[in-house]
Amino acid sequence: MNAPFKTVRQLESYIGGRWVRGAGQAVPLLDASTGQPVALIDASGIDFAGSLAHGRSKGGPALRKMSFHERALMLKALGQKLMEGKDEFYALSTATGATRTDSWIDIEGGIGTLLSYASKGRRELPNSRVLVDGEVEQLSRDGTFSAQHVMSPLEGVAIHINAFNFPCWGMLEKLAPTILAGMPAIIKPASQTAYLTELMVRRIVETGILPEGALQLISGSVGDLLDHVDCQDVVTFTGSATTGRKLRTHPVIVENSVRFTMEADSLNAAILGADAVAGTEEFALFVKEVAREMTAKAGQKCTAIRRVIAPRGSVEALIKALGDRLAKVALGNPADESVKMGPLASLAQRDEVRARIADLKANAEIVAGDPDRPNIISGDVEAGAFLNPVLLYCDKPGSAKAVHDVEAFGPVSTVLPYDTIDEAAELARRGKGSLVASVFTNDAAFAREAVAALGPWHGRIMIGNRVSAKSSTGHGSPLPVLVHGGPGRAGGGEELGGMRSVKHYMQRTAVQAAPWLLSEVTGRWMAGAIARNDTVHPFRKSLAELEIGDQLITATRTVTLDDIEHFANFTGDTFYAHMDEEAARANPFFDGRVAHGYLIVSFAAGLFVDPAPGPVLANYGVDSLRFLTPVNPGDTLGVTLTCKQINPRETEDYGEVRWDCTVTNQEAQVVAQYDVLTMVAKTWPQ
Amino acid sequence: MNAPFKTVRQLESYIGGRWVRGAGQAVPLLDASTGQPVALIDASGIDFAGSLAHGRSKGGPALRKMSFHERALMLKALGQKLMEGKDEFYALSTATGATRTDSWIDIEGGIGTLLSYASKGRRELPNSRVLVDGEVEQLSRDGTFSAQHVMSPLEGVAIHINAFNFPCWGMLEKLAPTILAGMPAIIKPASQTAYLTELMVRRIVETGILPEGALQLISGSVGDLLDHVDCQDVVTFTGSATTGRKLRTHPVIVENSVRFTMEADSLNAAILGADAVAGTEEFALFVKEVAREMTAKAGQKCTAIRRVIAPRGSVEALIKALGDRLAKVALGNPADESVKMGPLASLAQRDEVRARIADLKANAEIVAGDPDRPNIISGDVEAGAFLNPVLLYCDKPGSAKAVHDVEAFGPVSTVLPYDTIDEAAELARRGKGSLVASVFTNDAAFAREAVAALGPWHGRIMIGNRVSAKSSTGHGSPLPVLVHGGPGRAGGGEELGGMRSVKHYMQRTAVQAAPWLLSEVTGRWMAGAIARNDTVHPFRKSLAELEIGDQLITATRTVTLDDIEHFANFTGDTFYAHMDEEAARANPFFDGRVAHGYLIVSFAAGLFVDPAPGPVLANYGVDSLRFLTPVNPGDTLGVTLTCKQINPRETEDYGEVRWDCTVTNQEAQVVAQYDVLTMVAKTWPQ
Repeated sequence: MNAPFKTVRQLESYIGGRWVRGAGQAVPLLDASTGQPVALIDASGIDFAGSLAHGRSKGGPALRKMSFHERALMLKALGQKLMEGKDEFYALSTATGATRTDSWIDIEGGIGTLLSYASKGRRELPNSRVLVDGEVEQLSRDGTFSAQHVMSPLEGVAIHINAFNFPCWGMLEKLAPTILAGMPAIIKPASQTAYLTELMVRRIVETGILPEGALQLISGSVGDLLDHVDCQDVVTFTGSATTGRKLRTHPVIVENSVRFTMEADSLNAAILGADAVAGTEEFALFVKEVAREMTAKAGQKCTAIRRVIAPRGSVEALIKALGDRLAKVALGNPADESVKMGPLASLAQRDEVRARIADLKANAEIVAGDPDRPNIISGDVEAGAFLNPVLLYCDKPGSAKAVHDVEAFGPVSTVLPYDTIDEAAELARRGKGSLVASVFTNDAAFAREAVAALGPWHGRIMIGNRVSAKSSTGHGSPLPVLVHGGPGRAGGGEELGGMRSVKHYMQRTAVQAAPWLLSEVTGRWMAGAIARNDTVHPFRKSLAELEIGDQLITATRTVTLDDIEHFANFTGDTFYAHMDEEAARANPFFDGRVAHGYLIVSFAAGLFVDPAPGPVLANYGVDSLRFLTPVNPGDTLGVTLTCKQINPRETEDYGEVRWDCTVTNQEAQVVAQYDVLTMVAKTWPQ
Repeated sequence: MNAPFKTVRQLESYIGGRWVRGAGQAVPLLDASTGQPVALIDASGIDFAGSLAHGRSKGGPALRKMSFHERALMLKALGQKLMEGKDEFYALSTATGATRTDSWIDIEGGIGTLLSYASKGRRELPNSRVLVDGEVEQLSRDGTFSAQHVMSPLEGVAIHINAFNFPCWGMLEKLAPTILAGMPAIIKPASQTAYLTELMVRRIVETGILPEGALQLISGSVGDLLDHVDCQDVVTFTGSATTGRKLRTHPVIVENSVRFTMEADSLNAAILGADAVAGTEEFALFVKEVAREMTAKAGQKCTAIRRVIAPRGSVEALIKALGDRLAKVALGNPADESVKMGPLASLAQRDEVRARIADLKANAEIVAGDPDRPNIISGDVEAGAFLNPVLLYCDKPGSAKAVHDVEAFGPVSTVLPYDTIDEAAELARRGKGSLVASVFTNDAAFAREAVAALGPWHGRIMIGNRVSAKSSTGHGSPLPVLVHGGPGRAGGGEELGGMRSVKHYMQRTAVQAAPWLLSEVTGRWMAGAIARNDTVHPFRKSLAELEIGDQLITATRTVTLDDIEHFANFTGDTFYAHMDEEAARANPFFDGRVAHGYLIVSFAAGLFVDPAPGPVLANYGVDSLRFLTPVNPGDTLGVTLTCKQINPRETEDYGEVRWDCTVTNQEAQVVAQYDVLTMVAKTWPQ
């Protein structure tokens, strides 16, 4: 350890339920603006195999014992706690070079992602441990063999290897779906900014909210960790393509077909619409967005705009407007509140970006910003990693190579002119797959064509126009509910996307069985499964008593022509198929006058509802209602109502019950089929 | 070319719209039973880069111009044509060593998969070119910024590298979702049985049903093909793990993050339940299933049962019963109709299996079948690749290694005893990830525990019992509607699974925009998008006139207490919340008596329905109905009905129209929200 760093704290790893230090030579991590040491890092000598074993034997089983809702509520509690203590994270974040706005993306954006999963998880996943995927597939005509896909949490550990630019968000956006799925995680932040991740993990551990083993942290290099992964583990990586490729071809990952997701930087494009000429709102929005994306986080975002694709006729005005705007961005130490753009993460990072700018100059000229002489208003110009925003222009982007291949991971973009929309799309595609493209247009045809051309090459496309000017979340912001990732150069991975990413940590299994056995496995009733018709009306049963398969077979009711006419006149629905025999016969679906669909479901409710106060509190909806056989006057209807799914709410004294509702006629033909959704009390009397 | 093969035909490749021969030394492919040459194979000198370019420039654009339903109908026509000519395939299939039953799996199973996609594709996908994925996500409170995930077909070519055991099914099960997605394919069958694939491709090309470039065939080695793939291509592989790993780490595949799916052989287990002792129906079914899986296709199925896990107490009876059954299997040339099991695919394959049996003997002893002296009833015992079914027994499977690691890809299984269900599951997991496991039990608790333990390690689990004895499709049969693939050793891939696999050939993109622009891109109306209220009732418009966004704002109607009582008495739904003020108030969701949900939707229909005959033919259903605000007597309801999605049927003169239906009260609160589903004529008057 070098003498000047003696007083600086060494980061610890959280492994096997303890905070431990590496046994080797610790390396200093420097403040991006001042060059002063912030922390020391080293993880050598850590028992990585033991860490995996700990996650598998302690964290996994504890998480898998919980239901989706229990895990979601845990994430909610965690998110709230972290939000309460956010000031501490902001204070430390400055050292990474982040302005207050940059830190907001990282810290509150990260915690917000946790809270989004907490709330979506309870809305969109059942309060159970088994997740079914898709519909029941009937595999035999006689109904004795069916299948249902189920998702189970993997039994291993998710290893998340993160990038330096978002030490909080990068961890939390992966941790949220991992924990919600029921899988433990080991986080390995990039060293440069690991002190902020370490602080947040420390606070997480202190809350005691997560079960032991659910979260471990490696502050430093991962050593031989990957040599011990197996098919139940998941490895995700965010960072450079070079490192990503090395991990993807790691012999143990390949040997065991370990799930590997990669999210690498990409040469994201922003396209100015042909309609969005100087003077339009879209032109102004575009200038603002490009400048914002170049300077936010000093351009160190994998979603930042690297290529600015604009109609040739708009290029001059665009460069002028961008140049003016960028010149006004105050560069300096973000500890200084008037600073709008901080330094890059490190001097090494700045040298790297300068080298890439030099590469870009093979095809392009600098039209704004001097890469060598930073204009700073605070910070140490020698020891701080400052870089002015640099805008380049490439006149012949069709034949150029570097501008489509070289990524300067800093406040650097290149303007590329286009003549036709096909050319614009072709230039965007030259990026070989990106995380995001944006299109600024108020022309629906342009938007449609652009999305058709760019879709296969991008994980996200943002269309900016005047309507969403104020509400747009921006080109560069991945959102918890939207997929984040892109094909090709972007790594080919997918993260986030709401509940989609929860499934990345689960195994999908098609289970085939006789329906009664299948129903026992999935906890959902299905046609062909056992039904119980006892003397108690199932609406008289609270959640404490009700069971999947509890069934009511109702009395029957004959629908008369009078009923149909009466209903028509009462509701005002005098559609000819109900009222006019001859006209009804001319309809391709009917043989004569038919009952209203809404009459059928109303009579069905009349048959199955139990009128007195009881545990069934309300009918809050109906799903997938299909009218399968027309009902003619004289037909006699009966209903079979079966308890299909029970979803008690963790935080209320009631829960949702889904009933299979089958209305049949006197010939046992199914007339209507639907799910009735009710709220049912947990106990009764309450 | 060796002299004796002079008269044997050389297989051709179908590349760039022409049938071409390799320019190198062709290799003979031998009949598995007789050793006689069937065909010669060689693909050297073929322009593989040109083949990719042809698929990208011709096949892709032609397929992408079509809608999902057009592509599905094309698959249907193709399937029907192939089925008509199936005899020719059966005749040639015998040379591969396949019995009639084996060929049925390959030929009709393959064509059936095509037809399944053709029919599911029309039922489950829209008749459009854009596929939306999931729900609209509202991204701003004011409704000016939303998102929708869309799926676009990839712009490259799917390269399918297939195994020797199913020359037809192996091609068709991958081709069906590829074509349905709108992506062209290059098929590379394993050489040993490529003559059958070549014949089928020849017949496919002759039908002229697929657009040129949609399907190409390589009969022989793929040469430098993979050096030219990019991020818009897909590579799938079925075969040995060794080759799979080589492909997965191919530098160009890694460099471009090319989607790569692998399906390798696995050590699938069948577990006999503790309840399924000798004498039970499940025991008998188990014996039958294991014997069938060992001998079907001479055990050359990646889903075959390799490990037979049985209660220790049942082992003796099981070995006896299996041995008896296997001894009766008639082995020989499948051209002979009395033969029940054919030879392996080649002598090399037989040598390989014999070597693996020797490996297994490290932990296990042979208890039935002599691997060295085949008992054949026909065929050439020297030149044919015959092998008796071989059953082994491993007494200490917990400490054994080979039985969990060594795959003998032939009629070979090992019996492993267990004492507890945990032990049985642990033995199954020792396979390190499998395509399928089966469990034979009539005990729901055993089934539940088994699925919970095996789920994360398997792509499919089949539970066999007496109820599904006749209808079960069996342990070894992948089905078009179920996922086929498994974690770890099985390759970590996923195929089939109904429409899930169509998405493997598409890119998912989150599109963010102001709702009106987003709606233009997706072709679906959403809240916030432009709506047109002209003087014509939208129910008066045929599909030729109707447009997304056509909207009706109805008159209003006040719901009276009389209405509620009248409806209650008429339908019989006298639930207390409608009838009893005091009891209703006690309910946590209501402030007093409320209208029935079914009354609300009935009145809504009364408000929006246009009674006279017109293009709207029928209301065939309702989706996602939610009652959001209680309706009390005196509330006044109005409906906004907006055309949301139009789905013309290819083969009918009508199509589905989905309407967004929003019922609001006098305070503009949404009372009920749902989709109304109607059938609408393409033209009117018809």
